[in-house]
Amino acid sequence: MSDCGFVYLVGAGPGDPKLLTLRALEVLQSADVVAHDELVSPAILEFVPAHVERLRVGRRHGSGKAAYRLHPIVLERARAGAVVARLKSGDPLIFGRGGEEAEELADAGIPYEIVPGVSAALGAAAYARIPLTHRNHATRVTFMTGHDAEALEAGSGETVVLFMAAHKLKANLDRLISAGRSPSLPAAYVVSATTTEQRVVVGTLGDLHERIGGIDPAAPALIIVGEVVALGARLAEVGRPSFDPEAAAGES
Amino acid sequence: MSDCGFVYLVGAGPGDPKLLTLRALEVLQSADVVAHDELVSPAILEFVPAHVERLRVGRRHGSGKAAYRLHPIVLERARAGAVVARLKSGDPLIFGRGGEEAEELADAGIPYEIVPGVSAALGAAAYARIPLTHRNHATRVTFMTGHDAEALEAGSGETVVLFMAAHKLKANLDRLISAGRSPSLPAAYVVSATTTEQRVVVGTLGDLHERIGGIDPAAPALIIVGEVVALGARLAEVGRPSFDPEAAAGES
Repeated sequence: MSDCGFVYLVGAGPGDPKLLTLRALEVLQSADVVAHDELVSPAILEFVPAHVERLRVGRRHGSGKAAYRLHPIVLERARAGAVVARLKSGDPLIFGRGGEEAEELADAGIPYEIVPGVSAALGAAAYARIPLTHRNHATRVTFMTGHDAEALEAGSGETVVLFMAAHKLKANLDRLISAGRSPSLPAAYVVSATTTEQRVVVGTLGDLHERIGGIDPAAPALIIVGEVVALGARLAEVGRPSFDPEAAAGES
Repeated sequence: MSDCGFVYLVGAGPGDPKLLTLRALEVLQSADVVAHDELVSPAILEFVPAHVERLRVGRRHGSGKAAYRLHPIVLERARAGAVVARLKSGDPLIFGRGGEEAEELADAGIPYEIVPGVSAALGAAAYARIPLTHRNHATRVTFMTGHDAEALEAGSGETVVLFMAAHKLKANLDRLISAGRSPSLPAAYVVSATTTEQRVVVGTLGDLHERIGGIDPAAPALIIVGEVVALGARLAEVGRPSFDPEAAAGES
């Protein structure tokens, strides 16, 4: 192991390059190689010094099961002694496959560190002004994928954030309804959260899928469901910052 | 509103000052006033320039109900035209009362921005190497308080993170058991996550409370529950970074 390199599993945050952590920036600027997902925005990659090797690894989504847990080229570079920054959108351990990659590194005996990031869910909530928890409206928040939405029984005072749910949106919303939620429960579709492309569409579990016409379902999106969405719509209207209205919310 | 100041509701991250975002740093360095919780670490406050006014507001915990949603001095300074950074531990919208403070600002017509941060849950998971989601072990993760733990029915493939659950730990763990979970389910107690004081104690829902003897229950702590905790214990043992073993995990 003494000849080994080192791998950082680094969260890049939700999109806005200013939501990178100081630690992530330090790692990007000192690594030999930066291996990044397609989802990591070009603005973030601008922090990587020109002399550093950049590798695009991983898939956007929906293009089949990975035959490996960690891209073989990351292991190869680390075994050759390189310090590799494996840069992942959001936080590495929230639907980022960081756990699977850590297992692969542990099995290979390669030392590594996990650098947490601002999850896309937290970024979307802040920039769309939807409190994920709130004393009067939500005492818990669950992050899950659309595919598993049926497994979570409805509960009062909950917020649900669906990841990777834009494809087959109606089916995913229907799963939440099947598990006991009202079709009138407020729901928001947040696209390209925290970037200049951010758009927020607000509706209900029953009609959100009819409201997002024209938005590319391949654009990264999160669905936030719960009473807090109605609160968010009100917070987004009042006291909006005057200097940069685009950053706070798109349409609603 | 033209004479008004501006308020930033800023997440300071879980404790390690390097987990501050670039945006948070920028805000701290350009504000007129920084109003912070007691929980925000001194190392983070070192980023605040000497000429900036610092106010300690908010409570640690357990000291009674707040009669206000946002500390009156924050409103007062903003109304007088100041740019106030309201710095909160972790992420402002995950059990940070950021939503309540945003409501107050919206009602008062004071423009504001919410700057998301790395939640304590994400920081604890990364530094203790416990993947909150994992293809084979956890398809969803719920953040909640210990007090509400009984409300979440047990489900397979779930991770649960309890906030503010160190006091009355046994009662909080018992609530999760009452809701259908096995006493043998792995559980971790992560104290002072991401700081040099971090300690990780691993046990089960049934015995975790017996294992934390000697740890001050007033120290900020999170409880992580689920099969991923067992995976984390393995990940923490293998391929540990050689340069800073303290940072990865305490005892386990």
